Amino acid sequence: MIRGEAQEHVSNVNGVSTSSAHPPFIDRNASSALVRAYRGERGESTPVWFMRQAGRSLPEYRELRMGTDMLDACLNPAMASEITLQPVRRHGVDAAIFFSDIVIPVRLAGVDVRIVPGRGPVLENPVRSAADVAALPPLDPDALAPIREAVGLTVDALGATPLIGFAGAPYTLASYLVEGGPSKEQMLTRAMMHSDPDAWAALLSWCAEITGAFLAAQIEAGASAGQLFDSWAGSLSLADYTAHVAPFSQRAIAPARALGVPLVHFGIGTGELLAAMHGIGVDVMGVDWRLPLDEASRRLGDAVPLQGNVDPALLAAPWPVLEAHVRDVLARGKAAPAHVLNLGHGVPPTTDPDVLTRLVEFVHTHA
Amino acid sequence: MIRGEAQEHVSNVNGVSTSSAHPPFIDRNASSALVRAYRGERGESTPVWFMRQAGRSLPEYRELRMGTDMLDACLNPAMASEITLQPVRRHGVDAAIFFSDIVIPVRLAGVDVRIVPGRGPVLENPVRSAADVAALPPLDPDALAPIREAVGLTVDALGATPLIGFAGAPYTLASYLVEGGPSKEQMLTRAMMHSDPDAWAALLSWCAEITGAFLAAQIEAGASAGQLFDSWAGSLSLADYTAHVAPFSQRAIAPARALGVPLVHFGIGTGELLAAMHGIGVDVMGVDWRLPLDEASRRLGDAVPLQGNVDPALLAAPWPVLEAHVRDVLARGKAAPAHVLNLGHGVPPTTDPDVLTRLVEFVHTHA
Repeated sequence: MIRGEAQEHVSNVNGVSTSSAHPPFIDRNASSALVRAYRGERGESTPVWFMRQAGRSLPEYRELRMGTDMLDACLNPAMASEITLQPVRRHGVDAAIFFSDIVIPVRLAGVDVRIVPGRGPVLENPVRSAADVAALPPLDPDALAPIREAVGLTVDALGATPLIGFAGAPYTLASYLVEGGPSKEQMLTRAMMHSDPDAWAALLSWCAEITGAFLAAQIEAGASAGQLFDSWAGSLSLADYTAHVAPFSQRAIAPARALGVPLVHFGIGTGELLAAMHGIGVDVMGVDWRLPLDEASRRLGDAVPLQGNVDPALLAAPWPVLEAHVRDVLARGKAAPAHVLNLGHGVPPTTDPDVLTRLVEFVHTHA
Repeated sequence: MIRGEAQEHVSNVNGVSTSSAHPPFIDRNASSALVRAYRGERGESTPVWFMRQAGRSLPEYRELRMGTDMLDACLNPAMASEITLQPVRRHGVDAAIFFSDIVIPVRLAGVDVRIVPGRGPVLENPVRSAADVAALPPLDPDALAPIREAVGLTVDALGATPLIGFAGAPYTLASYLVEGGPSKEQMLTRAMMHSDPDAWAALLSWCAEITGAFLAAQIEAGASAGQLFDSWAGSLSLADYTAHVAPFSQRAIAPARALGVPLVHFGIGTGELLAAMHGIGVDVMGVDWRLPLDEASRRLGDAVPLQGNVDPALLAAPWPVLEAHVRDVLARGKAAPAHVLNLGHGVPPTTDPDVLTRLVEFVHTHA
């Protein structure tokens, strides 16, 4: 019956996805508001979750993480699962997103990477040459065991609430490897892209391989959808994105794609790349706070479900200001076949969690 | 005679600027390649200069600055002038840009701001409330004396090479005041914009006043053109830019506008805002490396001279890679009435200065 419902609404979406060849995975939580919206079906209210909802904005997260290194927390199945569940319990959001870090597959492949608090992922030995790329170790599928275990624990606890798998896109992942840490404009990364196209292709292939395996493992273990984050793609021209990045993002989602669940793609400041990013073969596009959803939908032929795009800066504004903004986002989101409300970027660590809870209630009761 | 030339080519530009009511300032270096291009006239070769050409990429700069605080260097007329001249001597660029910092007018108004090396402008007491804004002191025009003196020394030494005046736009300036330092996405600034529109308007009016006086002082003292940097405007939606920022940028350029020299406006990641930014009333638009110049020109009705947009990341690439990229930029720049070659962002401090010199030679000999 649920399967029948899923097929019925999938047929309403103009070629965004087809369900005929899908393995059983397609029906995982198919009747949930989130998965239905991701499939292009508009329900009574708009589903809502928040990027980085699991994390520093929650006191229960800060307490649990105390004394545990970030990557160690991600690789501790019980802890990663509990952190993933916290915002679902507290806010009543329509989805959990798997708590992890985009460099986890890099670490699991055996590369020396750590998270420096307040800074981000840092590599002892940045990857700058063809030889550096050639020396990158393969990812043993067995190394993903703690990820599968954490996802298994999480979906058992979530029941009818879907879990979204999480992974970084090859370009964003590569930028950490090349720069050796976070960077404002990925200058060394873009230099390598043009200076040594062969090393670049080899590096992005490696990133696509490991991040693709990481995402697929989450879906195999029970996630109902997946989101690929190309956070820094906004530093690229459309030409560079299309020629040097998109083919590898496409490769990264291939294993998840084969499992049939809906996939979301998101980047920051990527309004100019929206159609190209959708073109890698995803079902849903995330939109940051810069581009109104009606304009984003127009750029995608009004045929693609959208996710976003509340300005996270307004979480710190008085409620009436935030509410007016959210009403505007919901109204513009009606231009798309379906809309999942989210922020246009991650929850700022300083956010009052009660504001997020109130926001979820508002969205759920807003027609 | 020079005046006649200027009027002749100005009449060729479709309403981009009119010269009839201009005071004598308009003819300053009017026959230079730079000013002619800014007026929309295409010469035999493309003029070229580099944002942040005066600065850390030059050993003579690092030597001169040693032991001197950044803002002290900006306020020492002999030193600021010498730093401004260094890249003109070394590279043979077609313009000098006045060496300064966008917070100089803030400092000259008496606000406690300093530049922390490797970080940027930092305020002891950020401006977060209406009371904070009301307490901002006015800028005494006499305080700009060291700026006038530095510009006077510089234009005397430059002779036929034009000097471009430099100032930050109100939004970018305000973001430093509100955040208390550099920030990735100006979250507190955008929160204030929506939470307290009156305080916001008062803050941006103050910024427009002081930065406008700073720019006009440079032009009165001898600069042949001016560039307004709204570096962080790319964090804004078009709606927010238009409603809450553009009117104040327009006010900021009014005093310079009245002096008749050509004005350039530039921001990073502002492809979506290009027409709105031009709409404040400037003659030339700077374009970062993300948007190809032919597309940028199309968005401006092929009626506006452009400046840019070499990817600074490629300064670190082998010469043939950089040359191919520059050829492409020059070819696409032909879509605009005129083009001044520049980078799409400031010179990275790690740049080999010989690459910049070679680039200037290449552009000057390229048809």
